[in-house]
Amino acid sequence: MEVTMSSHSLSGVLAPVVTPFKDDFSPDSDKLIAHCRWLLSQDCGLAVFGTNSEANSLSVSERKKLLDDLVEAEIDVSRMMPGTGCCSLTDSIELTRHAVTSGCAGVLMLPPFYYKNIPEEGLYRYFSELIDRVADDRLKIYLYHIPPMATVGIPPLLVEKLLKKYPSTIAGMKDSSGDWNNTKLMLDNFAATGFDVFVGSETFLLENMRNGGAGCISATANVNPAAIAHLFHEWQAPDAKKHQQKLSAIRESFGKTLMIPALKAIVAHYLNDPSWKTLRPPLLQLGTTEEKQLIERLDSHNFDMPGLS
Amino acid sequence: MEVTMSSHSLSGVLAPVVTPFKDDFSPDSDKLIAHCRWLLSQDCGLAVFGTNSEANSLSVSERKKLLDDLVEAEIDVSRMMPGTGCCSLTDSIELTRHAVTSGCAGVLMLPPFYYKNIPEEGLYRYFSELIDRVADDRLKIYLYHIPPMATVGIPPLLVEKLLKKYPSTIAGMKDSSGDWNNTKLMLDNFAATGFDVFVGSETFLLENMRNGGAGCISATANVNPAAIAHLFHEWQAPDAKKHQQKLSAIRESFGKTLMIPALKAIVAHYLNDPSWKTLRPPLLQLGTTEEKQLIERLDSHNFDMPGLS
Repeated sequence: MEVTMSSHSLSGVLAPVVTPFKDDFSPDSDKLIAHCRWLLSQDCGLAVFGTNSEANSLSVSERKKLLDDLVEAEIDVSRMMPGTGCCSLTDSIELTRHAVTSGCAGVLMLPPFYYKNIPEEGLYRYFSELIDRVADDRLKIYLYHIPPMATVGIPPLLVEKLLKKYPSTIAGMKDSSGDWNNTKLMLDNFAATGFDVFVGSETFLLENMRNGGAGCISATANVNPAAIAHLFHEWQAPDAKKHQQKLSAIRESFGKTLMIPALKAIVAHYLNDPSWKTLRPPLLQLGTTEEKQLIERLDSHNFDMPGLS
Repeated sequence: MEVTMSSHSLSGVLAPVVTPFKDDFSPDSDKLIAHCRWLLSQDCGLAVFGTNSEANSLSVSERKKLLDDLVEAEIDVSRMMPGTGCCSLTDSIELTRHAVTSGCAGVLMLPPFYYKNIPEEGLYRYFSELIDRVADDRLKIYLYHIPPMATVGIPPLLVEKLLKKYPSTIAGMKDSSGDWNNTKLMLDNFAATGFDVFVGSETFLLENMRNGGAGCISATANVNPAAIAHLFHEWQAPDAKKHQQKLSAIRESFGKTLMIPALKAIVAHYLNDPSWKTLRPPLLQLGTTEEKQLIERLDSHNFDMPGLS
């Protein structure tokens, strides 16, 4: 099997970093910086402003201010892939330009997701307009395919067309379809030319690496980063399958619990800091019982978050 | 049958006003002002920044600037219901506050539409947080139920709960579900207490008025306002049903043509101004053949846009 090594700095495991809020629902920069430092210490990159970051509940100016705060705190931008895709072309351009000039290694870009049944040509014009206007050779775009949430997806023909026109800008994708057949199609069609395919869950990490993928960007990397990063590095080791099974079991212990409040409850629990549980409306924190059961299920796997402070 | 007359200034027919763009996809204020003037002259209110306005392709600052331009041009704010609902609470608050301080009679508010499977309690907290923060007695909210586009809807229990807590702020809703049973449920449950139910298409206008509704906010009111407004005023006249059938036939002549590019093509045709056809990506204008066939179908109904200039 042919495996292409990525030339990009962002391969590996990244967390869509959860965003802490103060009581008044304003973002808490200090706590975000601390969580980013801990993730980096666990060999985990920073997909800040992803779906699980509640980024779509933040305004453009709030996202820019948070990134400025991270940069000022000297959080490593070479490990950073902020989400910059909005419904509006002008918003996406503004966030993307800001991420690039801040030195971020790449951006994770949702398609415009309000208008539905958009022909592929429309999505192509949207992305090409954005790339032409940002007009910066440093721009590296990771296309974000997450049909369960965005409804609008990234079809293979769109990737092909964008790669043909912008081979050095279109750096890869995150596939959060949860459909391995779609990931496999992307790998088979595009990975050999250096297009980095990230799976959206560590459940598919070993399979992704065996097929030439670049890593994973997974919600649960917020709480279990080192173990996931270990599999990324050791995917060719004899016990890789066993390690994958253990990762998958921990992920499965989330059950039907909603992911974002679950992640925040876990961070709050292991930090002993209840303020971490705050979510911006319309998202709600877990009920007491649901939270207790989640922690008990994780305990049964001897789960821990070492070094968190 | 008991029919409650609305006490709000916004009852009647409103158009989600299409937004003209320049060649560089920036909004064209002058053309928007002209179209608003024409709509008002045809007895049509202004639901600017709705779905059909491509509002979700505009940034917050672009929407504020356009509204400022309309106000400066002395477009009647008492007939204006701008869309102000975004994914982010902070964006929605900013736009809503701006609309209220600009004197707009009401706002049309989408629920936060990125995160899916939101419990009703989460939506309730989102709206209540917004209302508490805007904290202005002049605020009148029309809830915008459009599941085919937003995916996230406005369930009846949410309306009930919001009406109970904020009876003078929750002024009504626009139901763009296309499901008359849902509209009927809203009318039966809430219209008697002065909650204004607008249907999202003139196809349901007569039925809505017969059941205590407040009017319609319809895409096609951008091009056929006077005839729709006529039915609103004359719904109790003996020939109302015939008039409804004629309106519905014109609407049906759009066929499967996508609504926003179709509206822009029609305005461009009757104004003889091809620049009106420009849409912001990801939306695309109609192909030449599709456009020609649409105009022909409208011609067969002796359709016209009198006074447009």
